[in-house]
Amino acid sequence: MESTYIFGHKSPDTDAINSAIIMAEFEKLNGNDSAKAYRLGKVNPETQYALDYFKAEAPELLTEDLTDKDVILVDHNEFQQSADTIESAKIRHVVDHHRIANFHTAAPLYYRAEPLGCTATILYKMFKEQGFEIKPQIASLMLSAIISDSLLFKSPTCTEQDKAAAQALENIAGVDAQEYGLEMLKAGASTVDKSPVEIINADAKTFNMGDYSVRIGQVNTVDVNEILARQAELEQAITETLSGAEYDIFVLVATDILNSDSTILVLGKDKDKIAKAFDVELDNNTAFLPGVVSRKKQIVPPITAALS
Amino acid sequence: MESTYIFGHKSPDTDAINSAIIMAEFEKLNGNDSAKAYRLGKVNPETQYALDYFKAEAPELLTEDLTDKDVILVDHNEFQQSADTIESAKIRHVVDHHRIANFHTAAPLYYRAEPLGCTATILYKMFKEQGFEIKPQIASLMLSAIISDSLLFKSPTCTEQDKAAAQALENIAGVDAQEYGLEMLKAGASTVDKSPVEIINADAKTFNMGDYSVRIGQVNTVDVNEILARQAELEQAITETLSGAEYDIFVLVATDILNSDSTILVLGKDKDKIAKAFDVELDNNTAFLPGVVSRKKQIVPPITAALS
Repeated sequence: MESTYIFGHKSPDTDAINSAIIMAEFEKLNGNDSAKAYRLGKVNPETQYALDYFKAEAPELLTEDLTDKDVILVDHNEFQQSADTIESAKIRHVVDHHRIANFHTAAPLYYRAEPLGCTATILYKMFKEQGFEIKPQIASLMLSAIISDSLLFKSPTCTEQDKAAAQALENIAGVDAQEYGLEMLKAGASTVDKSPVEIINADAKTFNMGDYSVRIGQVNTVDVNEILARQAELEQAITETLSGAEYDIFVLVATDILNSDSTILVLGKDKDKIAKAFDVELDNNTAFLPGVVSRKKQIVPPITAALS
Repeated sequence: MESTYIFGHKSPDTDAINSAIIMAEFEKLNGNDSAKAYRLGKVNPETQYALDYFKAEAPELLTEDLTDKDVILVDHNEFQQSADTIESAKIRHVVDHHRIANFHTAAPLYYRAEPLGCTATILYKMFKEQGFEIKPQIASLMLSAIISDSLLFKSPTCTEQDKAAAQALENIAGVDAQEYGLEMLKAGASTVDKSPVEIINADAKTFNMGDYSVRIGQVNTVDVNEILARQAELEQAITETLSGAEYDIFVLVATDILNSDSTILVLGKDKDKIAKAFDVELDNNTAFLPGVVSRKKQIVPPITAALS
């Protein structure tokens, strides 16, 4: 039997790693013994905490050429976020919760997308629909992914279905979601070991808004002062990034995962327009945004409107 | 409440028309009262037979600009097969059984694709999963679509799931699938009222194979002599098409839906290579291909191999 390669996106987060492991279990329960989970990058500290806590193995790093190989994608579909040889692979199945773009196949396939907060929630539904047993370790990995993507159910991307799945999974996993989840998020939120360049680039994405190219990075923290205490060296790293002329504005979003607030640090052309987008003013290049945690839903739309 | 526009592909076949009607019913049962089925082209004689037989109304022809409208696509996803303004619509849901290509969205959505023989089979599964009642008229439309796409379960694209769905639907619809299905296919298979140009273009698709551009048309018939008796005028129409220099070879596939065989009529450069692809020889530009009914699975692959 041909092998089936299962993996999430590059720069993997907890949903990308855990959903690959969970989907491999789903395939095995479905009779596909050749299914194996892989990862496309380094396991981050938050995910490592979850894997260690529940004594799960990280998937192997994918290094093979996927030409003509059977693959299953989880938590992504856009080819630039996928394996380098994805275009020549045979994509058999996709399970995802993102928009669809830069994706195509040569043949019919299984594709399951739902606009939920987390891929693991869709996988939870698939197990239930098939009547497959969800073992405690699989439940733990599903729960960890939901907590990660939803910042402990506080993100506006979190749906009722994500919450209901997490509640059911909490019982199977035998952990307290709030208590365990906070420890897991904290494990991934320490910035003290990171360089300024790592902090500003870790999760940065570029957006074209009106005539501006805006780079927006986001870093989770349990203590926003960890970030503010290093403002001078962070500004230096951002200024160097902006000097490349590729971006007009840089917005670093430091999100306080305990209080569900964010502080932004803004540099670049017309930076005051960014503050106005949130009806605040910049004080020493920073502003506090109460209740803001989601880049996708709460940061990008108002900035887009202000610059367009 | 905003309207939701539901439709299948251009040049609609029975699956494209019926799945739009069926999906509108699904949405209504799901609480979306604004859902409405549309069509992107003329209802063909086969589909009209099915609609008349079960006293169903054809969907309205879509003429509106879909900019910022909520839409649901059935039985297709590629934008060139869809409404002209599809790129500016909000695509909320897709239910399909084809490859994915030339498709993208700005936002997360529901996407359900399965490599089955018919979109209506996937819709049947969705009704069952939700515990929705399948009324006799809806069952009839599902059954008609499956019979159409599978040529009465004889096409190699037909899966066990399509057959099982059809069997269950036969009971709800209260018809004999073989008897009704044959009459429906016959209604769509008369070529006597069609001009040569209509016959060669009705369902023609272009394929790039090796250094050749190959145009392959397919026409269903209950009597292949209807086609062969008009060989001279068909060859004249094909020769005119080839004179445009866009295509190197034209293959017209006349499929006998009663006996599940096909006869090909081939004109153009290196036409003997087409016959060799099937281990036969052309006799007066034609060849008989026993057991061949599916362009996708039985015609395109051997010709691709022979020309590459």
